[in-house]
Amino acid sequence: MTLLAETLKKIKPLDASSMALARTRQDNLTKPTGALGRLEDLSIQLAGILGKERPQVTRKAVIVMAADHGVAAEGTSAYPQEVTVQMLANIAEGGAAIDVLSRQFGVKVIAVDIGVNGDTSAFKNVTHKKVALGTRSMSKGPAMTSEETLKAVETGIELVNAEFKKGLDIVGTGEMGIGNTTASAAICAVMTGKTVAEVTGRGTGVDDKGLKHKIEIIEKAIALNKPQAANALDVLAKVGGLEIAGLAGVMLGAAANRIPVMVDGYISGAAALIAAGICPQSKDFMIAGHVSVEPGHKYCLNHLGLQPLVNLNMRLGEGTGGVIGMSLCESACRILNEMTTFAEAGVSNKE
Amino acid sequence: MTLLAETLKKIKPLDASSMALARTRQDNLTKPTGALGRLEDLSIQLAGILGKERPQVTRKAVIVMAADHGVAAEGTSAYPQEVTVQMLANIAEGGAAIDVLSRQFGVKVIAVDIGVNGDTSAFKNVTHKKVALGTRSMSKGPAMTSEETLKAVETGIELVNAEFKKGLDIVGTGEMGIGNTTASAAICAVMTGKTVAEVTGRGTGVDDKGLKHKIEIIEKAIALNKPQAANALDVLAKVGGLEIAGLAGVMLGAAANRIPVMVDGYISGAAALIAAGICPQSKDFMIAGHVSVEPGHKYCLNHLGLQPLVNLNMRLGEGTGGVIGMSLCESACRILNEMTTFAEAGVSNKE
Repeated sequence: MTLLAETLKKIKPLDASSMALARTRQDNLTKPTGALGRLEDLSIQLAGILGKERPQVTRKAVIVMAADHGVAAEGTSAYPQEVTVQMLANIAEGGAAIDVLSRQFGVKVIAVDIGVNGDTSAFKNVTHKKVALGTRSMSKGPAMTSEETLKAVETGIELVNAEFKKGLDIVGTGEMGIGNTTASAAICAVMTGKTVAEVTGRGTGVDDKGLKHKIEIIEKAIALNKPQAANALDVLAKVGGLEIAGLAGVMLGAAANRIPVMVDGYISGAAALIAAGICPQSKDFMIAGHVSVEPGHKYCLNHLGLQPLVNLNMRLGEGTGGVIGMSLCESACRILNEMTTFAEAGVSNKE
Repeated sequence: MTLLAETLKKIKPLDASSMALARTRQDNLTKPTGALGRLEDLSIQLAGILGKERPQVTRKAVIVMAADHGVAAEGTSAYPQEVTVQMLANIAEGGAAIDVLSRQFGVKVIAVDIGVNGDTSAFKNVTHKKVALGTRSMSKGPAMTSEETLKAVETGIELVNAEFKKGLDIVGTGEMGIGNTTASAAICAVMTGKTVAEVTGRGTGVDDKGLKHKIEIIEKAIALNKPQAANALDVLAKVGGLEIAGLAGVMLGAAANRIPVMVDGYISGAAALIAAGICPQSKDFMIAGHVSVEPGHKYCLNHLGLQPLVNLNMRLGEGTGGVIGMSLCESACRILNEMTTFAEAGVSNKE
């Protein structure tokens, strides 16, 4: 059996009895019932995922997958392709936004080369898992072979398995890859049934002409490759990317290990569509950190049935929105763990 | 000159040159311009408030004012009045939601008895500043005398001045007081011009009958006392509360000391309407942590021109939404301080 098949077999429903116990405790804490809104609901979901009345998310990591996209050569991005490798170096050195937020919130950054088109062998603080030197352009044929696709997905599973063995309570998904909003828009259009124009945005900042061109390229790629929505691995191979495949693997691996996965922005959302397409049950283990400015992201979240925790008009990726959401998951758990009950505090309950 | 008058004299516009420098730096950090959305704008406001190109909000406190309301005797709350003193004890002991979130985000909790109807002299970890044993019922006459009102406002100023002397970069406002959504709704109706029905919610959880009664009591109090919107201190005295006055003082004191003030939920929003009524310039120093489920809160924020950072369906008060917002202020500052620029990181900029 492949690692992917083994992983899928392990994905089971949330633990209803832990959820019921957590709800009872939540309702006895010294506050009006429901007064902490989303934080209360989040604590119940986390109880169901982690299988504990009083879950904790102390050991936190974000897996940032970097890869290149052949389609970037078609001019769909505002930045040159070399930025992928440069930004991977920046992330590894601690100077990127994801590093800053992760330091603030106590999250370990695991930067991964899963398919950068360049030599990163000298980079320290990078996990070297290169599957290929980027994808081929989806406007000329499938972006990846099915072998590359499976290898990238299983790389994500292996990474989360390895980190789980060391001790991990929650994992976030992040990425860096010039051209990856193009691949994400293609996946989103195919998986949600929205038009390409509806789900395609400016990414790192293309102008009106660039946006029109980006839409045409995606439409061409979909017409050429005919990805089948009912077969998520087929969609992933034809119009996806190596980091998207890796992140789908992280999501499936998290669900198999019964830990929550914080879904970041549009690229992570596209990976989540793939993971949910492969295994619908995996959705219960996902939490949406934020909703991105990229117009397709809200359709991803709607399709997945996920409500974003915050909306800060962000569109950076790297896992930044997920890490902010992770701090709210920690808040939710701490509330459940550390607040006193009415009885403990000797506070009168509702009349 | 009174302390209030002295304080108002010190409130000046934001520092435009620090804001311009911060904007330039923000635009050179290794991310597409604007990709961090609200966090970028927030960093610019913080630069203007703190008067630094690279502001920091390391020393954080939330001032939680507790007081009672005579109007609670009219049955406008779902909880008995004794809960105010019990919850002040709970906050002082570290078991309340505000304590939990403040521990997580490194925020000092300053719990203040500014007007609890009970003996709190034995409570440790409480700042004793009782102005009166709660307010009188606004349904029978003014809630406070003008002397009590001024004393409570100046208590807030003194507290923030004292903390600022010890070292304070950002302050949050929080409160506990059975009956205080009733007073806040009265203030909100008068100051924003909305109807009482539009701005009155269920508070800690009154039922439909209780909500109708609450609206009637507030309408009666406004008809009887005739608070004048153009005179915010008059409104505060007639239909306000001691903790609301104290928090308005905290906001004015923060602006005078040029530190940001995180406005929490509905009661803090009502205090902000009063502070802005006394000194419109003080609005520039305010940041809205979240928007509450209480229906009047959004009208407060609109009137003040404040955009909430998050919406988590919370309605607890105590400063909880403000403390979550404070963590995002810290994120905004850290981004500006710790991220590398394109030049520093050797990353290619937009083509």
